[in-house]
Amino acid sequence: MVTQITEEIPRSVWYGWGDPTRARPLSARALEYLRTTLGLTSVDAAHPPVELAAVMVGPSVLSVQALAELASICGAEHVSTDNTERIMHAGGKSTPDLLRRRGGDAAGAPDAVLFPGSAEDIRKLLDLCARRGIAVITFGGGTSVVGGVEPLRGAFEAVVFLDLRRMDRLLHLDPLSRTATFEAGIRGPAIEAALAPHGFTLGHFPQSHQQATLGGYVATRSAGQASTGYGRSDDLAKAAHLETPAGPMDVGSPAPGSAAGPRLLDAILGSEGTFGVITSATVRIAPVPEHKSHGSWSFESFAAGAEALRRLRHEGRRGDMPHVCRLSDGDETAATLKLGGAKTAALGRYLGLRGQPAPALGLFVWEGPKSETIARRRRSARILRAAGGIPAGPLPARAWEHGRFSGPYLRDELLTRGVYVETLETAATWTKLESTYRAVRGAILGALQEHGGTGYVQTHVSHVYPDGASLYFTFLAGLEPDGLAQNARVKKTASEAIVAAGATITHHHAVGIDHAPYMEAEIGELGLKVLAGIKATLDPAGIMNPGKLIPTPIKEKP
Amino acid sequence: MVTQITEEIPRSVWYGWGDPTRARPLSARALEYLRTTLGLTSVDAAHPPVELAAVMVGPSVLSVQALAELASICGAEHVSTDNTERIMHAGGKSTPDLLRRRGGDAAGAPDAVLFPGSAEDIRKLLDLCARRGIAVITFGGGTSVVGGVEPLRGAFEAVVFLDLRRMDRLLHLDPLSRTATFEAGIRGPAIEAALAPHGFTLGHFPQSHQQATLGGYVATRSAGQASTGYGRSDDLAKAAHLETPAGPMDVGSPAPGSAAGPRLLDAILGSEGTFGVITSATVRIAPVPEHKSHGSWSFESFAAGAEALRRLRHEGRRGDMPHVCRLSDGDETAATLKLGGAKTAALGRYLGLRGQPAPALGLFVWEGPKSETIARRRRSARILRAAGGIPAGPLPARAWEHGRFSGPYLRDELLTRGVYVETLETAATWTKLESTYRAVRGAILGALQEHGGTGYVQTHVSHVYPDGASLYFTFLAGLEPDGLAQNARVKKTASEAIVAAGATITHHHAVGIDHAPYMEAEIGELGLKVLAGIKATLDPAGIMNPGKLIPTPIKEKP
Repeated sequence: MVTQITEEIPRSVWYGWGDPTRARPLSARALEYLRTTLGLTSVDAAHPPVELAAVMVGPSVLSVQALAELASICGAEHVSTDNTERIMHAGGKSTPDLLRRRGGDAAGAPDAVLFPGSAEDIRKLLDLCARRGIAVITFGGGTSVVGGVEPLRGAFEAVVFLDLRRMDRLLHLDPLSRTATFEAGIRGPAIEAALAPHGFTLGHFPQSHQQATLGGYVATRSAGQASTGYGRSDDLAKAAHLETPAGPMDVGSPAPGSAAGPRLLDAILGSEGTFGVITSATVRIAPVPEHKSHGSWSFESFAAGAEALRRLRHEGRRGDMPHVCRLSDGDETAATLKLGGAKTAALGRYLGLRGQPAPALGLFVWEGPKSETIARRRRSARILRAAGGIPAGPLPARAWEHGRFSGPYLRDELLTRGVYVETLETAATWTKLESTYRAVRGAILGALQEHGGTGYVQTHVSHVYPDGASLYFTFLAGLEPDGLAQNARVKKTASEAIVAAGATITHHHAVGIDHAPYMEAEIGELGLKVLAGIKATLDPAGIMNPGKLIPTPIKEKP
Repeated sequence: MVTQITEEIPRSVWYGWGDPTRARPLSARALEYLRTTLGLTSVDAAHPPVELAAVMVGPSVLSVQALAELASICGAEHVSTDNTERIMHAGGKSTPDLLRRRGGDAAGAPDAVLFPGSAEDIRKLLDLCARRGIAVITFGGGTSVVGGVEPLRGAFEAVVFLDLRRMDRLLHLDPLSRTATFEAGIRGPAIEAALAPHGFTLGHFPQSHQQATLGGYVATRSAGQASTGYGRSDDLAKAAHLETPAGPMDVGSPAPGSAAGPRLLDAILGSEGTFGVITSATVRIAPVPEHKSHGSWSFESFAAGAEALRRLRHEGRRGDMPHVCRLSDGDETAATLKLGGAKTAALGRYLGLRGQPAPALGLFVWEGPKSETIARRRRSARILRAAGGIPAGPLPARAWEHGRFSGPYLRDELLTRGVYVETLETAATWTKLESTYRAVRGAILGALQEHGGTGYVQTHVSHVYPDGASLYFTFLAGLEPDGLAQNARVKKTASEAIVAAGATITHHHAVGIDHAPYMEAEIGELGLKVLAGIKATLDPAGIMNPGKLIPTPIKEKP
């Protein structure tokens, strides 16, 4: 049976998010909300993407000889210099990525896209590319929103992409030890489809689940919507096989709990393709939950809701935490209540009457055996109520779950209608959560309005830890004539506010190009030297994903 | 109120374990057990340690000028070239360490012992030592049993120890985020004494708890007796400050759940002083448990007991796992039952009547709020019974807890009586646990008996993970004339069996010198190069703890 989490979708459209047949037009209510909230005089569909045929893409600089050598390794049918394929790989899914491609600019597209079939193929390809001085970027689902798969060439003439889509098999399942080994190119739904017949799940559901790959997960330390329960990708990963220009490498002990020195797996997790290619990974798996129990609670403010989440984490019975644990601020809750149907509008009025005129809505899902799950929810309910929460029934959490993967589709239509929209995220300790929220929200709003327009920011917590929580900001404004400059301005201001607040520059979007300038603040100058030293060991020629993660000055093509 | 876990003991005696006034002589029953089990004709106290005054220790090679420079940094009163101090720092607490020192050999003792008072002191000392070519070994509790603090000089003329005992303060406590920052030289009981007034515990209780330091914990990825509940030291560590010859370095994000690249904290955890000196660490803390609920269950075999532990981990309700979770094999259980009092003998007879003539005893402690803890134990009891467990009441678990830190004292008297005793440990997946147990146990027994004598091995599981468990082997034999050769033979055979079994070379004893030859099997040639590369970045002159962790050929003094 195909479910929401096992359903595979086509490869993403080149100009936007996912499978465009899944996008739904903005409702009249949403358009009206944009007009009133952002004060936009026009939200017409005046900025559609150009036709694919009109996209500018330079010629491939690879010689016939180089292409023949690449083809001799993975087969001519798995080497493409086709313009459409190159445009499809001309970057990720950040708003500037989309602005560029929608505007017809794919000038930096890779010179070829390779589809290797095995770690052996990749080993030979890396040898060849190191010898010929060709930059190599590994491509999974291509959903990076921080420039992680920008086709930068670094110091090299040419850049090729390794698209791992052919490497999508379940290699080994150990039901007794509850681990599974997959090839890195397997996408989220296929992971779940492979595990489901054995009664297991990975439990990793980022918003990019339908497109992203296991290799991408572990290469970026991704977190999923249920990571509060199942753990982040870096908790789930147990081992990985890597092909590097310096040779193959296995990281992660097959055994649990090793004390054999530094944990090199953690040097590879989050390395974003800059050290080598993760070709397979072994992950912890969990039984498919028998039952899901949904609940929603409303709080008088975001701060009150955050304090309730902290108490849930600290005072709740061991193991009671919900698998999904989200809290929207007043703005995000207001949008939810206004843009939903009659029922959500009624909920808003009810909360107002209960003394919460600007409520912050929390959504929770407990997963597990039925009786246990319900008991966990009941015990948690006591804490949430004691913390000032008003129960709002299971429906808001169910509605969120129903649309859990669809949010990013909205951006395509918003951009078409001249609305700038982007997201960014961080995490902070409980002690610094509220100050980080205020500082970053204020910084984004200020930057959005810097040129006089209106701006809108909504925020939520999506992951709860013993020592703190994540913060996720979604923001909109009228698209300025230079959308790239607008985006750079807002991101820079927000990033500086995050650093100043003592939070982390990224909770789950990873580093890519966008956050590289803030890595020194995050890990220090000597930390950067350690990263550069690891790269020098594994990728002496520097061909792997140049310009990402480590903010070394990269010599670009003139 | 001073408790078992906050009681501080004097610094360890030079020839053995801990505070010798805490050692109790072997009982007549134990001596008889040794005679029958090991077939030893003599267990007389014929091999006492030499007098301290008779220990051979070479002169310090440090020049007056060098000593003056060292003293100018941390104060003359904190620089010692006293022979007793040097002998106290002439290695750790492995059986070969003790055999050497008991026999009067401290020839390799460090040239000076320094007691820095701050990270600033350490930074200056490292500068000086790098400039003068002096090897530096950091010393916390000195309880390494794998040669982690052997005073090797590497390529250098002189070696100094940095004993961190003066750096023992609680620097910061964040009760809201449940984290605490300590200087690295604080010992286990002092950590607990500092946290207790605030209602918190670190929950980290290795057998070395009374002597070991926080810096040692995180530098070796130690696991404690309650780590199944609280997590290992590498789970508890959130951040650390390091002084390296290349400069100061902070690792670990203050925020939870960062995705900002590779996790450099995990490159420092387990680095065993080879990259720099951990001067402080921030750790997760937990509320002091209101209640402890003890339980013991007996199984018909070690394999049956291990399967029960796996089911407890996999089938138990989320959060129900005991904090302490141990399982002795038939040999260890037989020793416990024979060497206990009348009650344990009666328990053995009872289990025999219940159809368990060679039982494997499991010991469990659940910690937390009283009602929750009892409920967790009750639910777990159902699983343990269904897995064939016979309840044996709380007393065996309580008795274990009472003596939880006293085991290693026995070794001193055993060595005096001519009995060779050592321990080693590993961990394996559930799938490989039984085969690893059999292979390693068989290898140890074979090596013990290689020269014709009798040998004895007992084994237990002490840590349970989702994907597997640890295995801890304690073994005895008559002490051969060349005890060092005897030990090397047994350790080598056991280590090779661990590697061949696909287990990890160490679960919590760490690498030191003893396991360095097996690091290539553990992390691969390229993994070793990555470690060496990190060391080259942080310690370009190679002065930090030479010869440990990374099996580079170290040029020794002739």
